[in-house]
Amino acid sequence: MMISAAEIADYYSQLDQIGAVSTAQGKGFSRLAYSASESAAIAFIEQRATAAGLCCHRDAVGNLIVETAGSFSRWVETGSHLDSVVGGGNYDGVAGVVAGLALLTRVQQQHEKLTHGLRLRVWRGEESAAFGTASLGAWAAFGQLKPSTLERCYQGVSLAQAISAEQGNPQYIRQGRATISHDERDAIIAHIELHIEQGSVLEEQSSDIGIVTGIRGSIRNWVRFSGAFDHSGATPMGTTHRKDANLGMAYVMVELDKLVAHFNNQYPEHGQMIVQTFGMINDHADQNQRYPMIYANGVSKVSGFSYFSHEIRCCFSDIAQLFNDQAQQLIEKISRSFKLHVEIEQISLSHGVQGLDEQLQAVMASCCRRQKRSFSYLASGAWHDVAVVCQQQKSDGSRIATGMIFIPCRAGISHSAAEYSSYEQIAVGASLLADVMLCIR
Amino acid sequence: MMISAAEIADYYSQLDQIGAVSTAQGKGFSRLAYSASESAAIAFIEQRATAAGLCCHRDAVGNLIVETAGSFSRWVETGSHLDSVVGGGNYDGVAGVVAGLALLTRVQQQHEKLTHGLRLRVWRGEESAAFGTASLGAWAAFGQLKPSTLERCYQGVSLAQAISAEQGNPQYIRQGRATISHDERDAIIAHIELHIEQGSVLEEQSSDIGIVTGIRGSIRNWVRFSGAFDHSGATPMGTTHRKDANLGMAYVMVELDKLVAHFNNQYPEHGQMIVQTFGMINDHADQNQRYPMIYANGVSKVSGFSYFSHEIRCCFSDIAQLFNDQAQQLIEKISRSFKLHVEIEQISLSHGVQGLDEQLQAVMASCCRRQKRSFSYLASGAWHDVAVVCQQQKSDGSRIATGMIFIPCRAGISHSAAEYSSYEQIAVGASLLADVMLCIR
Repeated sequence: MMISAAEIADYYSQLDQIGAVSTAQGKGFSRLAYSASESAAIAFIEQRATAAGLCCHRDAVGNLIVETAGSFSRWVETGSHLDSVVGGGNYDGVAGVVAGLALLTRVQQQHEKLTHGLRLRVWRGEESAAFGTASLGAWAAFGQLKPSTLERCYQGVSLAQAISAEQGNPQYIRQGRATISHDERDAIIAHIELHIEQGSVLEEQSSDIGIVTGIRGSIRNWVRFSGAFDHSGATPMGTTHRKDANLGMAYVMVELDKLVAHFNNQYPEHGQMIVQTFGMINDHADQNQRYPMIYANGVSKVSGFSYFSHEIRCCFSDIAQLFNDQAQQLIEKISRSFKLHVEIEQISLSHGVQGLDEQLQAVMASCCRRQKRSFSYLASGAWHDVAVVCQQQKSDGSRIATGMIFIPCRAGISHSAAEYSSYEQIAVGASLLADVMLCIR
Repeated sequence: MMISAAEIADYYSQLDQIGAVSTAQGKGFSRLAYSASESAAIAFIEQRATAAGLCCHRDAVGNLIVETAGSFSRWVETGSHLDSVVGGGNYDGVAGVVAGLALLTRVQQQHEKLTHGLRLRVWRGEESAAFGTASLGAWAAFGQLKPSTLERCYQGVSLAQAISAEQGNPQYIRQGRATISHDERDAIIAHIELHIEQGSVLEEQSSDIGIVTGIRGSIRNWVRFSGAFDHSGATPMGTTHRKDANLGMAYVMVELDKLVAHFNNQYPEHGQMIVQTFGMINDHADQNQRYPMIYANGVSKVSGFSYFSHEIRCCFSDIAQLFNDQAQQLIEKISRSFKLHVEIEQISLSHGVQGLDEQLQAVMASCCRRQKRSFSYLASGAWHDVAVVCQQQKSDGSRIATGMIFIPCRAGISHSAAEYSSYEQIAVGASLLADVMLCIR
């Protein structure tokens, strides 16, 4: 089954009108979680699905469910979201919903003989931009959204009020009640999300498709160095005389960069097991307020205080922790050699998702070969709704089999009006997703 | 001739009362250039010198000149200053003035038979803290203080007004007229300043005396890197995918640190030819205002913009420039390998003083041996009044022979209330200075 770019373009001609805003980077979209514009986008999908003969309903927290008509005891699902950050693009999430609707529409209209039903879940509120938590609709559907989240406000409106305003029922969340029953959960053969990559690996490798191997979690630390402020002209070079916080930090960063390369070499089958980033150096407003000695640094002084943010991302939380431990030992060792006092403070910890189904990945790869699509295996750096589904148990104790398909996006740009994937790229992804959803048993 | 700690303590018992202020580090001194408290300190020295039978006069710009009584055709001078930064110590400059007064007093009182006169110059306004230029009095005495400096203001008072208020005549500066005549200049055999080290080399090497080989100048640059802000989770490691400004900068700093070590190894006779400092990274208020993209850095983003201050200090301005050129080539090479755009902007340039007289240094060394004082050769990182004298030509085209003696100060701390040298240490320096001043021919 080949979905065409024209079919994708048809949906986009309408979706491009919903929640559009102008930004410095051009036309963008502000379709916040549980906003009227998110509801309008969901209503459009529902209307087109109904017109195509598909069956639609909303769950109690406002997620839309679209199904092929007929009676099925087992289901293969796809799902993604229509909400965006403020001034974001119209592909993050949207591409997956449009692909799902396109393929279910074709299956419905071609009267394919199905061994299992196909289902599209349009989750609400995947972005954390408004209420500070990602995947609101997905967590709520499984009864796992923290009730306290309901009290969070965006522009003076609480999440509870926003859900009510968009015809949802916050009581389900308050009581931790799932909208997806145990029977429904047990009947899911697999759940596969299609999404834009939000990175540039596929573009650089000229791959049509990314088969996602896991979703990276993160460990984030502040690493702070205390040395001694000294006269830069009168204090000789070298650690006999200087306790140079800036210089010691530079050595730490370079050695950590070498450590991650060495570490990743131990896991060649994973490509890059760990990604590591030093996003901020001495320039974080809150840190500078907490540690005003940063302002004692000067052009003609040996630096007495410095810090950087150390982020470690990995699909495997035990391996992330192992690397974090090795990194801390290295940081402490180098700090000692520079006579610096070092302090490491954890900012946040989120566990990676390593449960994406390997059999599903094998099916994706064989479908790519059949469709003559080039593909790469890669980990997802960003969080996605499928990471919620992946953590759900069935009655027999097994997990729902989950998978994720990436399509390229231009220059890896996302969460920006400059975000872009072509209709052709989305159609290629939709065609592959259709093949995978139909051939799974 | 041995000056005793008691003699030094006697002067300090009075000087400790003049311009004292309380600071976070304890009792400090605020004796700004051409302030009433600087004048009070000068008046105290003048009063004690006169009482000891020495001859005193003030020049037109307020410098105090103290001389041994008698008629001499040739003179050996010492000189330093009594002003301080805001909340500074009572040793930076003051130790040299006190040492000079103590030794001239002894010479006068012991009726030493002199082959040449001894002179102490108490320069006004060595610190640039108030009016932004160092060695106001010394430059003015040689007719070389820029007239425009007179318009600079400190706390609403211009330098011209401050000089007038302290019984000086700003007209000399306005007209570029020297207060030291050509004859007076030609009669100077040598000029030697005693000063606290303002570094910790002597303390660490347990040396009583530092023989200064030169005064370092500086080249200061901003080095700015532009890369690309990217998602830290979705963008793989490595320069194929990342243009990481923070990481590239860290490699640059480490390689520059290795370069300076390699460079200095080529000049083993100079100890450390170059000192290099990265005082500020991403944390300079004015730079951040000029380059607000620094605020686009984030903990979970690959860094797209970064900068650091690069300071090179060296006594030899041609060698400083040579190193600066090599450093820039290295910075550009590493930036290219990280796919970063780099921009180097010079902040300031001041030429080092390499003219300190080598014969004088040999005399100092032999006097140290005679007095059984341990000594080290070292370059001065900070600027001093002697650097002005060093640049003055006599009628025959030769330069005034200049020298500089350092004494240790605790932990290298200066420009702080915690600045400290003991009376014993000052007395040891004064005794050596006396020996050197008397034995020069």
